[in-house]
Amino acid sequence: MNGTALPLQNLIEQFERLPGVGKKSAQRLAFYVLNLPKEKALLFADAIVEAKEKIHKCESCQNLTDSKLCPICENQSRDRSIICVVENPRDILAFERTKEYGGLYHVLHGLISPMDGVGPEQLYIKELLLRIGSGEVLEVIMATNPTVEGEATAAYLAKLLKPLEIKVTRLAYGIPVGGNLEYADEITLYRALEGRTII
Amino acid sequence: MNGTALPLQNLIEQFERLPGVGKKSAQRLAFYVLNLPKEKALLFADAIVEAKEKIHKCESCQNLTDSKLCPICENQSRDRSIICVVENPRDILAFERTKEYGGLYHVLHGLISPMDGVGPEQLYIKELLLRIGSGEVLEVIMATNPTVEGEATAAYLAKLLKPLEIKVTRLAYGIPVGGNLEYADEITLYRALEGRTII
Repeated sequence: MNGTALPLQNLIEQFERLPGVGKKSAQRLAFYVLNLPKEKALLFADAIVEAKEKIHKCESCQNLTDSKLCPICENQSRDRSIICVVENPRDILAFERTKEYGGLYHVLHGLISPMDGVGPEQLYIKELLLRIGSGEVLEVIMATNPTVEGEATAAYLAKLLKPLEIKVTRLAYGIPVGGNLEYADEITLYRALEGRTII
Repeated sequence: MNGTALPLQNLIEQFERLPGVGKKSAQRLAFYVLNLPKEKALLFADAIVEAKEKIHKCESCQNLTDSKLCPICENQSRDRSIICVVENPRDILAFERTKEYGGLYHVLHGLISPMDGVGPEQLYIKELLLRIGSGEVLEVIMATNPTVEGEATAAYLAKLLKPLEIKVTRLAYGIPVGGNLEYADEITLYRALEGRTII
């Protein structure tokens, strides 16, 4: 506190609360914002307020949006017969960066995790079933993380969707592109062997 | 843009403009802020607005403050006979963390750098001379960074202050505490040798 005016100290503390931002980074960021021209600093503050006020979940896929449907669900050129199920909206951004996926998404907003007290009823699974019930969907891709929780959730959903007789798929496991075999863990390497393809 | 609502995209871009924050970090931070309870997100926005509106330079030392004088200049227990000259307010925080310095500061808000077109007249040097002119000051510590610009600024100020017959000192050079001699560069090592003290 010593030597720092209260509003500045407060701004530093706000930055310190962000994930992955330590004491010194928070100071650096706070001073950076203070050195911005006034209108730019206010634009930053406004962006927070506006995002917080306008952003909510898409009625269909539960992605974040500022209108009734998210930009992907609204996009008529997307393939409506395939749904990629992800844990959170950030995963959608990751898939969109590949520019290779043209279907729709469904965001669960979490994974089944008994350890954290998260059961299937807390996830947006009912909404997924409703969408599949419309009859348009032919394939559901389980794109949850390759972790215990991600696998459990994918397995749970696959079982749930089985009676509906649609194709349920899972992302491929293997060595990451550009990765080094030497540093690959044995389970990944085993999966890469198991999933080997003819060249 | 694809798949991301505009207010969210805007918030991500605002975070991306911060120093040391890349594309993925910006996304992580934006989603974190979106997931905050509304009042906490608004506190963050308010902290930016308030800091920007209330913070200005201390009339005396040019540190950042929300009143006429900064908390250090206002603190009557600080030694008014010694001034530590620094490049920017963040350096004050670094010195205050040592809890060992009890004097005052003076912030230049920059360093002399002909390459960047910064001359002495753009720094708060006149204000420093005014303070020294009051007669209370006995010592000025040059605490600019040990870089070309920092050295040049310290040398310039030392020359300027010489006729005033006050003690002008410079921070000690040497090996950093906890550092490894093996990795010390030769100039630092040379300076450490040169400045050796009797134990």
